Amino acid sequence: MDKRSRAMFINSLSGFKSANLIATINKQQQTNVAMFSSVVHLGASPALVGFIMRPETSPNHDSKITQRHTLNNIIETESYTINQVSAHFWQQAHQTSARYNEDDSEFNHVGLTPYYLDGTPAPFVQESQLKYSLKLVDIMPIKHNNTQMVIGEITRVLCLKNAIKSDGFIDIESLNTVCVSGLDSYHETTHLSRLSYAKTDRQVTPIGINGKAK
Amino acid sequence: MDKRSRAMFINSLSGFKSANLIATINKQQQTNVAMFSSVVHLGASPALVGFIMRPETSPNHDSKITQRHTLNNIIETESYTINQVSAHFWQQAHQTSARYNEDDSEFNHVGLTPYYLDGTPAPFVQESQLKYSLKLVDIMPIKHNNTQMVIGEITRVLCLKNAIKSDGFIDIESLNTVCVSGLDSYHETTHLSRLSYAKTDRQVTPIGINGKAK
Repeated sequence: MDKRSRAMFINSLSGFKSANLIATINKQQQTNVAMFSSVVHLGASPALVGFIMRPETSPNHDSKITQRHTLNNIIETESYTINQVSAHFWQQAHQTSARYNEDDSEFNHVGLTPYYLDGTPAPFVQESQLKYSLKLVDIMPIKHNNTQMVIGEITRVLCLKNAIKSDGFIDIESLNTVCVSGLDSYHETTHLSRLSYAKTDRQVTPIGINGKAK
Repeated sequence: MDKRSRAMFINSLSGFKSANLIATINKQQQTNVAMFSSVVHLGASPALVGFIMRPETSPNHDSKITQRHTLNNIIETESYTINQVSAHFWQQAHQTSARYNEDDSEFNHVGLTPYYLDGTPAPFVQESQLKYSLKLVDIMPIKHNNTQMVIGEITRVLCLKNAIKSDGFIDIESLNTVCVSGLDSYHETTHLSRLSYAKTDRQVTPIGINGKAK
């Protein structure tokens, strides 16, 4: 396989991936927003989220320049936001991976709106229905391929109240959050069900969206 | 928020997650299979995939025992398989997170079938339509919450040929691969589109499933 097909193939293997925009700002107030499909839950207490940063020198990764601006800004301000991509702006989100110059904000180019809250330097993406700010905790080098895992602690969550169920579950499908497969394929979802807590002495059963028995 | 609601809430923030079964074996030929929603693509060359292992001592994580069997087996044999969960067996996949004893294989309890290939000690999950074997590369401790990222290199991929497109993209939706939100919610997908490579001088446009212009 050639390099590009191999990247496409291997990127499909992990399954469906989250679609998130990571937004940042540098000390000159220049904003940046970039698409990431590698955001991963690390733990609830403390509330930690990670994402994978590609190597600076990778030859076949298209969005590396945009992504490095993201990392540079995070290092400068220790602040960033993660914004779930929904069916209302998935094409604009993908457009952020074009190689815009550092002094050219993707917000302007793709038609998304920065939204600021006191105490959080980085902008949120106003169009996103579920978004949160993070404070940088660590950047862990992954020596085997020169990627890095950027770890942040969640400081503030903005989400439509209706989507949050009484047991804490957020119905992200009701927010039209999309997911990604491979490098460029986007998908909406259709709920199968939530399932009961698994026990050894019985089979799991479907439960309601609110976490209660059906 | 109480601990369980907080876990449910924070687990919903990263977006849709991959649904994968990780299957292992120990030196006594005891097999294990466990559900993970944290598998993440790390890079294509070498082909590296990571997943997050919860801490041994976490009080409110239900599947920790099963998951620790997974880690112990990987350390013993350096071999494991990742198997995409599809709509044909998502409830059985969720059932693997019950706290079965170490000498009790989840394969028997949930009705999934181990499948062996010469040269790969760990079993595959026969029911999975896209599965691959890995060799352990590294276990990186994440000191901030005592989780670990387990990194493996892909050694062999088993996938229905029809799902692999000419540019390397795998149509995992055609394999009925499901995704997860929160701790217990499962979803099928509906394709929006693949999108063209993003360029600064034009808007991205939908392309065909084979990667060619529509």
